[in-house]
Amino acid sequence: MTNFNTKDHPHKRLNPLTSDWVLVSPHRAKRPWQGQVEKAIVDERPAYDPSCYLCAGNERAGGKHNPDYKGTYVFTNDFSALLTDTPDGGTDEGSLFQAKSESGICKVICFSEDHSLTVPEMDVSAIRNVVDVWCEQFNELGRNDQIEYVQIFENKGAIMGCSNPHPHGQIWSSSSVPVEPARETVTQKAYFEKNGSTLLGDYLKAELDKEERLVVSNEHFVALVPYWAVWPFETMIISRRPVQNLLELTDEERDGLADIYKQLTVRYDNLFETSFAYSAGLHQAPTDGKDYPEWHLHMHFYPPLLRSATVKKFMVGYEMLATPQRDITPEQAAQRLRDLSPVHYKKTNQ
Amino acid sequence: MTNFNTKDHPHKRLNPLTSDWVLVSPHRAKRPWQGQVEKAIVDERPAYDPSCYLCAGNERAGGKHNPDYKGTYVFTNDFSALLTDTPDGGTDEGSLFQAKSESGICKVICFSEDHSLTVPEMDVSAIRNVVDVWCEQFNELGRNDQIEYVQIFENKGAIMGCSNPHPHGQIWSSSSVPVEPARETVTQKAYFEKNGSTLLGDYLKAELDKEERLVVSNEHFVALVPYWAVWPFETMIISRRPVQNLLELTDEERDGLADIYKQLTVRYDNLFETSFAYSAGLHQAPTDGKDYPEWHLHMHFYPPLLRSATVKKFMVGYEMLATPQRDITPEQAAQRLRDLSPVHYKKTNQ
Ligand SMILES: O=P(O)(O)O[C@H]1O[C@H](CO)[C@@H](O)[C@H](O)[C@H]1O
Ligand SMILES: O=P(O)(O)O[C@H]1O[C@H](CO)[C@@H](O)[C@H](O)[C@H]1O
Repeated sequence: MTNFNTKDHPHKRLNPLTSDWVLVSPHRAKRPWQGQVEKAIVDERPAYDPSCYLCAGNERAGGKHNPDYKGTYVFTNDFSALLTDTPDGGTDEGSLFQAKSESGICKVICFSEDHSLTVPEMDVSAIRNVVDVWCEQFNELGRNDQIEYVQIFENKGAIMGCSNPHPHGQIWSSSSVPVEPARETVTQKAYFEKNGSTLLGDYLKAELDKEERLVVSNEHFVALVPYWAVWPFETMIISRRPVQNLLELTDEERDGLADIYKQLTVRYDNLFETSFAYSAGLHQAPTDGKDYPEWHLHMHFYPPLLRSATVKKFMVGYEMLATPQRDITPEQAAQRLRDLSPVHYKKTNQ
Repeated sequence: MTNFNTKDHPHKRLNPLTSDWVLVSPHRAKRPWQGQVEKAIVDERPAYDPSCYLCAGNERAGGKHNPDYKGTYVFTNDFSALLTDTPDGGTDEGSLFQAKSESGICKVICFSEDHSLTVPEMDVSAIRNVVDVWCEQFNELGRNDQIEYVQIFENKGAIMGCSNPHPHGQIWSSSSVPVEPARETVTQKAYFEKNGSTLLGDYLKAELDKEERLVVSNEHFVALVPYWAVWPFETMIISRRPVQNLLELTDEERDGLADIYKQLTVRYDNLFETSFAYSAGLHQAPTDGKDYPEWHLHMHFYPPLLRSATVKKFMVGYEMLATPQRDITPEQAAQRLRDLSPVHYKKTNQ
């Protein structure tokens, strides 16, 4: 019998940020696909769309009008999942029926007035403006006594539930710390108390040595496919310097974040020569006024596509009921992303 | 200010089986949908399809031929995610790079030779045959020294990654206990040790009193929308008698499971008058030879549709990065399902 190795043999890997496992089935990459295929993404959009509720000057749901903005524009979500005026309270029906009131503020950030753009097609300086808005919003919402966590994210592409292709992201801020950041707080704290350094700082150091999961990098940030990636081309951007949140970033580091956001999403678009769908978001320390030296800022990218612009990975039966499962290995995914051109395919194909 | 109540105000609820929270935004049910819509399900299929690799007599991937079966038919998955001959082993690169070999056996169960059927359209006696196959397979796989968990599940519908509409389910059995059942073991054990009764037994008792989340029931099983449901029309089938696994069911209870599987899926199909997609699966005690008095057999149903046959709920940005979120309340969902006809719409519409 040959020796066990993670390149050829089914195995599980531990995610030290969540304490969950993922099942990796390297041999299954050859499985033919006869199931659902997604619509090919229609990628020709005008710079201004009169029917888009995010374009400058247009009317939104509920009758409000967007100003004639250039660059970024922030407003409160017209269909906020969380509201500011929710009364405090909870249920008292025993341990099996626990509910607690949750309040918060939900915002939408238009990344550009240009309806036709996406992050990988924007200039780094324009993306830097988005980073600055994140910082401003994080600061404002984080200072609010009622807000304990600020979740900044982007749903990109119709298959990721994005209802409008205009380049935009969201912020949902809440009166308690959500499930995933709460989990990452526990694991990072335990690691920090044991080792005196951040979990992701040490992880990044090891990955920079090993190299095989790196995708792109600059002076301040590294994008890699985590050892425990669940989605086929899942990545994570990690700051080289351990910082708890966006507000600790220097001016140059903000530029670095904008730069790597572009570098990574250009590779994504080039992978299948399509506007690559994903959900992405920043994980940072809670904003409850406490100090979180264990927290190391990072950004997750969860893209669903698996083998082409129209075939995605389904996280269904076994994944929902048992353990998330992936076919290609994280190392193969990283290599494919790393080998792609740094120039966006639309520019090369002209 | 009005008092907090779970019918009108955003809140979070605790899932005592996983210890995770779900965010409920009751006021958001009015949100219009301008995003992706699914293809309407084409629901006219012949009883035999010469191109279907699950139909009797046909050739499968890899050149094997199905026998000329009637009723159920079980075979080893041609693209198994888990294999029997995987060498034992793991990595030894420190706490941040943990991998462990995983072996197992993956099977496919054809529910019927009739390509045109689905569970809600099958006779209860034919579904009972499926339950018997589950029991046989659970017994056989569970007795295998290398198998510590037997995950029985069904992916139904193309939007749930099901690559073939022929009525079928799967079993993935593994050499270690997967993430979700492992979590449910911890919570059920803690509850049992504290209370001397099963978590789901006590939960079911309370729900039978409250009534508002019940959907359908019979002498041996109850289907309800759990208090902590994440998916819009998520349900759970719970056995009235606490049993650790399928093998403890009496003959009558097996009939009861077949009956409620049909009752529930008929309501599902009737909800939007479409073949209702879902991932469903049984959760039972591990098969590592230990006794699990805390384990209470149940079956989860995770259906993605939200407001029509073509508009689903997307579990994306906030859900992936922070906390799962739902719009309609579990109580509203239960009421809608409960009020539907017990007769399949295709029979009524004839
Ligand atoms: O085994 P199938 O039906 O080909 O595949 C389907 O179910 C599996 C188990 O839930 C998933 O891992 C796949 O993503 C899904 O497409
Ligand atoms: O807010 P949107 O873009 O309308 O909605 C989208 O993102 C939300 C946050 O991830 C999800 O809850 C919705 O299911 C999804 O469609």
